Amino acid sequence: MDDEINLRVPGPTPVPPPVREALSHQMMNHRGAEFEAIMAEVHAGLQVFYATNNPVLTFPASGTGGLEAAVVNVLSPGDEVIAVTVGAFGDRFAQIAEVFGLQVHRLDYEWGQAANPADIGALLHELPAARAVLMTQNETSTGVLNPLEEIARTVRATRPDILLLVDAISGLGAAPLLADAWDLDVVVSGSQKAWMVPPGMTMLSVSERAWEAHRSARLPRLYWDFTAARKSNDLGQPPYTPAVSLFYALQVALRLMREEGREAIWARHAALAERTRSGVRRLGLELLADPAHYSPSVTAVRVPEGIDLKKLLKSAQERHNVVFAGGQGRLSGRIFRIGHLGWVDSEAIDRALLALADSLEAQGWAGRPQAAGV
Amino acid sequence: MDDEINLRVPGPTPVPPPVREALSHQMMNHRGAEFEAIMAEVHAGLQVFYATNNPVLTFPASGTGGLEAAVVNVLSPGDEVIAVTVGAFGDRFAQIAEVFGLQVHRLDYEWGQAANPADIGALLHELPAARAVLMTQNETSTGVLNPLEEIARTVRATRPDILLLVDAISGLGAAPLLADAWDLDVVVSGSQKAWMVPPGMTMLSVSERAWEAHRSARLPRLYWDFTAARKSNDLGQPPYTPAVSLFYALQVALRLMREEGREAIWARHAALAERTRSGVRRLGLELLADPAHYSPSVTAVRVPEGIDLKKLLKSAQERHNVVFAGGQGRLSGRIFRIGHLGWVDSEAIDRALLALADSLEAQGWAGRPQAAGV
Repeated sequence: MDDEINLRVPGPTPVPPPVREALSHQMMNHRGAEFEAIMAEVHAGLQVFYATNNPVLTFPASGTGGLEAAVVNVLSPGDEVIAVTVGAFGDRFAQIAEVFGLQVHRLDYEWGQAANPADIGALLHELPAARAVLMTQNETSTGVLNPLEEIARTVRATRPDILLLVDAISGLGAAPLLADAWDLDVVVSGSQKAWMVPPGMTMLSVSERAWEAHRSARLPRLYWDFTAARKSNDLGQPPYTPAVSLFYALQVALRLMREEGREAIWARHAALAERTRSGVRRLGLELLADPAHYSPSVTAVRVPEGIDLKKLLKSAQERHNVVFAGGQGRLSGRIFRIGHLGWVDSEAIDRALLALADSLEAQGWAGRPQAAGV
Repeated sequence: MDDEINLRVPGPTPVPPPVREALSHQMMNHRGAEFEAIMAEVHAGLQVFYATNNPVLTFPASGTGGLEAAVVNVLSPGDEVIAVTVGAFGDRFAQIAEVFGLQVHRLDYEWGQAANPADIGALLHELPAARAVLMTQNETSTGVLNPLEEIARTVRATRPDILLLVDAISGLGAAPLLADAWDLDVVVSGSQKAWMVPPGMTMLSVSERAWEAHRSARLPRLYWDFTAARKSNDLGQPPYTPAVSLFYALQVALRLMREEGREAIWARHAALAERTRSGVRRLGLELLADPAHYSPSVTAVRVPEGIDLKKLLKSAQERHNVVFAGGQGRLSGRIFRIGHLGWVDSEAIDRALLALADSLEAQGWAGRPQAAGV
């Protein structure tokens, strides 16, 4: 990747050369046998990384569309839901539920903190009519990985019937997630994250419990309808034109991922995230997230006093071709984020850290003296 | 295109080499200055082909998503609408309105016929509470081009305040359409048609009248929200991750289109459609559509008695690498369709006609004797 941009934002992530090549393939009939075979291979590959035997549906859309699809397919107007939010994307999931007329009980955490399973358990006891829990696996805006497995266990122990809808857009593929073993109901992902393909496709696994809920759910839907999308998987007949070039790309990306192996990919992300954090600490910078819940996909770094963030990002990009992401919402200007998910290796991280060091130095940063011993 | 598939379906359409090359470009930060410039160029280019000064919004989605976006952004539960349908896609637009709880008055035509402006005018008089007319410009399932300009004139003369929502997915770019001059309110298009890029982006122009309606429209929406999408155009800040690779592609495709010129592209489509029809007639086959309303994008051909359609399509593909489309819905098995929109020239049409002749001959077809004199 030497001659190329070192894109260290938490999505879109860099696309490996064979996947880029696949993107440029000529169109084909999306109702023919050849495309049917590609769809079948892609859906089977997605099931491997979701660790599920349930169908994984795909829609031409961004991840936000996937979140909307999750809500409108399994719930009815006025339903009570619990929305657990630890950042901007948790807020978005809650907002979708509100917009569609659900009765939303929010469980908010300070940005940088993770959700606490015990709080969710307690709230479930207080709200026996709640039909669903909406939550984020990996919060892209703060670099926090929620303890999803533990939360799922608590939810299931408290309310075996409740729906657990998970935004796993920036986590799936990078962080451990076992949709069936953890008994998750709808798990939403997006093509431009760990999957190493461009944005424009969202994927959702749907449990038996969610299918059952879907049958009687009354929120209006046509584009997002699970029943129509499932036909696409079963019969190879998409209800409307699929994102053909992204299927070409995902077919190749999933082959690369299967070669590397699900657990090996998780381990690579964990190691690169740790490498990023120690590099950042060595520069005397502070991390935003609770140390017990660091994300393997993205690291949020506090902007130290005296440093001009805009200048910092500009210098990294212009002098080193390294692109970091700024903060979102209430963290705008207060943090920046280093993405390390998808197609990324230690060299890319080291180059990014060097660019960061140089760009800080250009502003006279000499580190925090008290951080030297850490 | 000699070594390549001759994709004669009405979308996805073949992608020209420079557009395919653009698809394979590496990802970039979708919140950076470089992407902002691409978005601005694409939106300006879209305005040229929509013939509008109003904003053209884009969403990562198929055309069906664009139709849903049109409905949910300008209407409220229980609103009365008139859905004019001449085929499968008119039915889909009506279905979306029904699913979202609108009171839908259908105006149905036999498949193969076009809508009649006088009928629509009469219905508008009968239904003074109607808030919108939903209709298709070019019906992909039957190869019919509705007389949209005349219909728009009638609608506007009868009800200056009513919203006219147009599915122009397979027509825009290929058939004349002037969004501002014809005073159309929401015009929906899709990337995989005349735009010569892969599926996955839908575009919508929005008139002042539609913006006004949008402000008080109460159907629930988040992913499709026009206000959020408009911010993307105005500030270069998309509300969620856009389909980055399709923006790369559309930037290049729009440059090609601007080079050729809007009116020249319309003329090319008209000529190639006529070339297709006369070739089909010379083989003794019959067309489905009303001769006064042939589509410039797609030609629907009746399957003659004694011809096995599956075998015909298979032979064209396997022996000649030419892909035709079958019929949809009630026309399944009764027609096949020849797409001639987007990146297509007379050579591609002639090759397709040769493949058709050969595949018919393989089934012993010698033409209809009585057709010889036509």
